[in-house]
Amino acid sequence: MVRVTVPATTANIGPGFDCLGIALSLYNAIEVEETDQGLIIEVEGRDREKIETNENNLIYQSMLKTFERVDYRPKGLKIKQYNNIPMARGLGSSAACIVGGVVAANKLAGNPLKKDEVLQIAVEIEGHPDNVTPALLGGVVVSHHEKGKTNYVRFPVKEVLNFIVAIPETELSTKASRGVLPQTVPFKDAVANVGKSSLLVAALMSGELDKISSALEDRLHQPYRISLMDSLNNIFIEAGKKGINQLFLSGAGPSIVYLTWDQGEKEKEEQFYQLVASMPEEWNIKVLKGDNIGTK
Amino acid sequence: MVRVTVPATTANIGPGFDCLGIALSLYNAIEVEETDQGLIIEVEGRDREKIETNENNLIYQSMLKTFERVDYRPKGLKIKQYNNIPMARGLGSSAACIVGGVVAANKLAGNPLKKDEVLQIAVEIEGHPDNVTPALLGGVVVSHHEKGKTNYVRFPVKEVLNFIVAIPETELSTKASRGVLPQTVPFKDAVANVGKSSLLVAALMSGELDKISSALEDRLHQPYRISLMDSLNNIFIEAGKKGINQLFLSGAGPSIVYLTWDQGEKEKEEQFYQLVASMPEEWNIKVLKGDNIGTK
Repeated sequence: MVRVTVPATTANIGPGFDCLGIALSLYNAIEVEETDQGLIIEVEGRDREKIETNENNLIYQSMLKTFERVDYRPKGLKIKQYNNIPMARGLGSSAACIVGGVVAANKLAGNPLKKDEVLQIAVEIEGHPDNVTPALLGGVVVSHHEKGKTNYVRFPVKEVLNFIVAIPETELSTKASRGVLPQTVPFKDAVANVGKSSLLVAALMSGELDKISSALEDRLHQPYRISLMDSLNNIFIEAGKKGINQLFLSGAGPSIVYLTWDQGEKEKEEQFYQLVASMPEEWNIKVLKGDNIGTK
Repeated sequence: MVRVTVPATTANIGPGFDCLGIALSLYNAIEVEETDQGLIIEVEGRDREKIETNENNLIYQSMLKTFERVDYRPKGLKIKQYNNIPMARGLGSSAACIVGGVVAANKLAGNPLKKDEVLQIAVEIEGHPDNVTPALLGGVVVSHHEKGKTNYVRFPVKEVLNFIVAIPETELSTKASRGVLPQTVPFKDAVANVGKSSLLVAALMSGELDKISSALEDRLHQPYRISLMDSLNNIFIEAGKKGINQLFLSGAGPSIVYLTWDQGEKEKEEQFYQLVASMPEEWNIKVLKGDNIGTK
């Protein structure tokens, strides 16, 4: 029996649209074993009623693609999925299923694939590397996908960082989140994002955390996506009025991450909890740390 | 007598438009002393015929602004400028004069300004931080200027990097280089630059130099600026055909930097020299290293 755990991930991180991702201390687990015939999929945990237990299951689909690649044919499969990462909330739930499936299938087949090949297959299935890469490798990953190849630099996420994640009950489809993005943008917005994303990467890597606050502003996706959901919009506006600026949309949303470090922001954190609790929809808060291990 | 040396700088570095700069091993020197009255400016070295020796001299102007800030009034001044950095070629010659002037004036006044205040004054005079910051601090600097404040992260430039700088005899004014930039850009070009600049910063910082090649492509300024000068355009096109891809426009141009490391590209370097030599204008080549000391 093969057991794999995969972390949740937050991507984009403000200005780092489509290139920056961080693994978080919230995990899905998968147990897989080869059986004599057929397919059994059992799901436990959060959102289990939304997860398919037939051939459309994303973990199974990802295993299948991996088996095809390495020319391995299991007689039958039993998959047990322990789901902790909320689905369609911008926390990398599909990347976790894909990475978990590819890694588990590779293990069952006797590890024919190297880590980099596992990564390329997972990126192909997901279509972009920003969640898949940190889910596999842990830490902070800066990645760029071009001509079928993912280039990335991975470095550890600092221990002092806290990721206060606010997760609404309402989903936001990636399709809607993608659809609202513009075809062209003002030159100065593009330049602002280039500067801030570059500064953010340098600050996360060097640990000069005081440089992060000014580097989190985004002009390429957040302003468009936040408008898709009233409470999301209100949280950003009201938080800004209270001087709570270290917020970003996790992935394509709708979850929000409030990034803090040390004990520096206790009062503002309290204000943030109250603000989120005052919204008409239900929002849940999880206080997470970065994960530096990735899939194991 | 105060003697200050200031390095040349290359900025933008492909996708890092307006935010990324590196100090280079090519230096201007300034010697300044207080005299009983009047202003004497002597200039030696490259482009000396273009440098004003009256009150319009940029070093003098920068000293004057610094003296005003710290309320220091020298009776008279003698400035000797040893100029090695070619002017108006995208190698930070004006930043070097400004930083040199501010640092020299601060020293003459008895060092009332801290390094960060020196930086802010120099950025104010230059109008943007991308050359001024590495000229003062050395190394690689990722900076962003907003609401009158420069935020930056500085880290050392790797010893193995070679900056092969091709400098044309022809100047290109910053005004023309700025004027050719578009008002809006395709969303996907903005996203590509965000990803590549972020990856480039991470690769320069971590030393994973094999990630640099794919991260140097720019879509925000180089395609527009290269078209301003035939030979510039030709060098980029012909170099691309030969697989020489680690080229970028230095600052606003017209100088080109070919970035190499170790001994890996000797044959391509030879091809690059021949290509540059085949242009109708005269181009000079300087092989430089990064500078990690900055102004001293």
